Amino acid sequence: MIGMKTVKVGLIGLGTVGSATYGILIRERSRLQSRLGASLEVSMVADKERSAAEAHDIPDSIFTTDVNDIIDDDDIDIVVELIGGMEPAKSFISGALERGKTVVTANKEVVANSGCELVSLARENGAGLYFEASVGGGIPLLRGIHQGLAGNNVNEIYGIVNGTTNYVLSKMTEEGIEFSQALEEATEMGYAEADPSYDIDGVDAAHKIAILASISFGSWVTVDQVFKEGISSITQKDISHAKDLGYVIKLLAVGKRSGDGIEVRVHPTLIPASHLLASVSDIYNAVFVNTDSAGPGLFYGTGAGGASAGSAVVADVVEASRSILTGTRMGFESGLPDSRADDVIDIGDLNSRYYIRLRVIDRPGALASISGVFGEEDISLASVRQTEEKTEIVDLIFVTHMAIERNVSRALKRISGLEVVREIGSCIRMEDSL
Amino acid sequence: MIGMKTVKVGLIGLGTVGSATYGILIRERSRLQSRLGASLEVSMVADKERSAAEAHDIPDSIFTTDVNDIIDDDDIDIVVELIGGMEPAKSFISGALERGKTVVTANKEVVANSGCELVSLARENGAGLYFEASVGGGIPLLRGIHQGLAGNNVNEIYGIVNGTTNYVLSKMTEEGIEFSQALEEATEMGYAEADPSYDIDGVDAAHKIAILASISFGSWVTVDQVFKEGISSITQKDISHAKDLGYVIKLLAVGKRSGDGIEVRVHPTLIPASHLLASVSDIYNAVFVNTDSAGPGLFYGTGAGGASAGSAVVADVVEASRSILTGTRMGFESGLPDSRADDVIDIGDLNSRYYIRLRVIDRPGALASISGVFGEEDISLASVRQTEEKTEIVDLIFVTHMAIERNVSRALKRISGLEVVREIGSCIRMEDSL
Repeated sequence: MIGMKTVKVGLIGLGTVGSATYGILIRERSRLQSRLGASLEVSMVADKERSAAEAHDIPDSIFTTDVNDIIDDDDIDIVVELIGGMEPAKSFISGALERGKTVVTANKEVVANSGCELVSLARENGAGLYFEASVGGGIPLLRGIHQGLAGNNVNEIYGIVNGTTNYVLSKMTEEGIEFSQALEEATEMGYAEADPSYDIDGVDAAHKIAILASISFGSWVTVDQVFKEGISSITQKDISHAKDLGYVIKLLAVGKRSGDGIEVRVHPTLIPASHLLASVSDIYNAVFVNTDSAGPGLFYGTGAGGASAGSAVVADVVEASRSILTGTRMGFESGLPDSRADDVIDIGDLNSRYYIRLRVIDRPGALASISGVFGEEDISLASVRQTEEKTEIVDLIFVTHMAIERNVSRALKRISGLEVVREIGSCIRMEDSL
Repeated sequence: MIGMKTVKVGLIGLGTVGSATYGILIRERSRLQSRLGASLEVSMVADKERSAAEAHDIPDSIFTTDVNDIIDDDDIDIVVELIGGMEPAKSFISGALERGKTVVTANKEVVANSGCELVSLARENGAGLYFEASVGGGIPLLRGIHQGLAGNNVNEIYGIVNGTTNYVLSKMTEEGIEFSQALEEATEMGYAEADPSYDIDGVDAAHKIAILASISFGSWVTVDQVFKEGISSITQKDISHAKDLGYVIKLLAVGKRSGDGIEVRVHPTLIPASHLLASVSDIYNAVFVNTDSAGPGLFYGTGAGGASAGSAVVADVVEASRSILTGTRMGFESGLPDSRADDVIDIGDLNSRYYIRLRVIDRPGALASISGVFGEEDISLASVRQTEEKTEIVDLIFVTHMAIERNVSRALKRISGLEVVREIGSCIRMEDSL
């Protein structure tokens, strides 16, 4: 159409998310055009491998192996970075912002580590920065919190934000199998990487809660400020005891804001079986948000996979285009924090309930000596149960009232030294306030 | 601050939502200001009753009983309409749009009846139109679908969008009580109006699914195009039979798009007990969306109440302000449909499964004569069960395979004429594809 404006997009990276994004932009081109009243054109695609272009039917004329062909092209309005990892992705993003280009990225590492400086860089250069796809795949989550709940103070966020660990824990819960077998199933299904530690140890979830907490609480939390603990020590026994107590074990990413500061942590957590989050199983993600005006809310959906993340990237591209077409580059980053959080609470100061499983020699006085230590460390017990086993060693399950983590650690250290105690089976935080 | 821009807001209506909105705008003023880089000022408030101003500590200087003081004020950028109902609300909205003012409204009646013409009016006048609060209270739902899923084709929406009916059905399910008693409890709790028919008969939900379908499917569905059926005929027997079959009964608002056209309907529905929507109880609302790229997604939260709706109104005001500050009035309405849906499918053509409960005289041959009619009307049965009762009249429960509604209606008419049939107890649509 003569005179119709065109927004030009440069796409970096043709992996799973990149190729899905390209596919959506091509397939939905006419619909997006009529929506924007302007043409949305993928004018250049970059990937290290030339073969990637062929695999996705990308014409030679718009393909390059040199990212500078995108960053340095004055005609390109929006740079979409989808290669992941810190470098060279961060340099590409910075370079684009410095040239006043709006950036859309799915890169949780870059945002969780360097979000603060990139927001500042975007502002200085009158460029937009969008990263909906960095958390929760296709779920319109960051936009939902940042824009949809703009009138609210967010007090608490609880997220199931890693599909792999949720799949593993779901299988353990549904099929009664142990961690290693569930992980094997996840690998067979393609839900776990060859080296699954990034997911299993909570690293992925830690990045995501850092971003969620930053958006929600108004200052940037970096990933190294997040306490994290993975799921590899969770046993079928714990799953089953939790169930008897009315709980489900999830890898929960938690963010809370109070007068004392900000809590940000990722760890296996006992959550009430009746809570909506307990019904979020398999690879699905969900984030539960508590706010002062809107009340409780939940966002649920597909947290991973090319099409899902591609959906979020395209949503960002559309908003970025709208922003550019109206002559402003004021994007998602407007209203985002540009300072760092200096009030993240140490995990030792956490006030929580705890589920504790001890392997104990079944002998008179065992319970007395253990509960004596809890008492001395100012930890009061909500319930104690002993399993009936035919062996000399039995499980003792303690559920505490609210207690300070530092005290619990000290108590467990002392308890592990008691003669009757064979092993600290597990100590898992609980969230009843959900 | 010298030189800081100001966005001026005029607020019409100081009911529950209006006063909550005013409260949030005043309370969060400095946070919203730092977010926008501009001052957000409530410069005029209108209500019929002068006493409303006192009740909410609104200075006389910014209070009026004449709405024209807002609509005709050239300095006011955003008009927030919160009186509800068709007239005079619609005239106020039109008047504001005609004067190039951006409008934020929570008015589901006006949007569900006249959304199409108001979007056109907004465009003609370069004004913005926002109505997040018209559906799902504080849940960032419309923005989530319209913007967050912009790259997707939405295929199906399933919503629990009325808190009153969800509360009533939840109580019937949890406490085993009948409809009338559950409704009484809802009234005592303040969840049902003195005249509850607007909620109970599905009128409220019909407005909301009309808006949701319009946003999702790209053409305006008006409320009169929505098939609706209320929950007043649901009995404890149905709840309990449904439970035995693995289902829960919800008042479901359904929108589907296929090659044949658009389905939009509100009615009691059997949904699988394992589905996330089945866990949405009490007054909560949730909308489940199926899309081609992002996959399944769910939005959940508080669907009613002043603070919750006020939260959505303020989110709209913030986005509208951003739009105004960047020198454009291109609001939420950009990209919304401006044509009417002419392909809404007649309910008679619905293809669904049905749960049918008949009151039948316990006599040999009864089942044969009834199932004979089903067969003749091309309805095949998935299951039949008879309850054991000590009376002459028993319940016969049929679950059909997929069948055409028109055939089911005809079959039930014929069946009601059979000598052995005392009563058609109920016929409830099922959604297994959820």
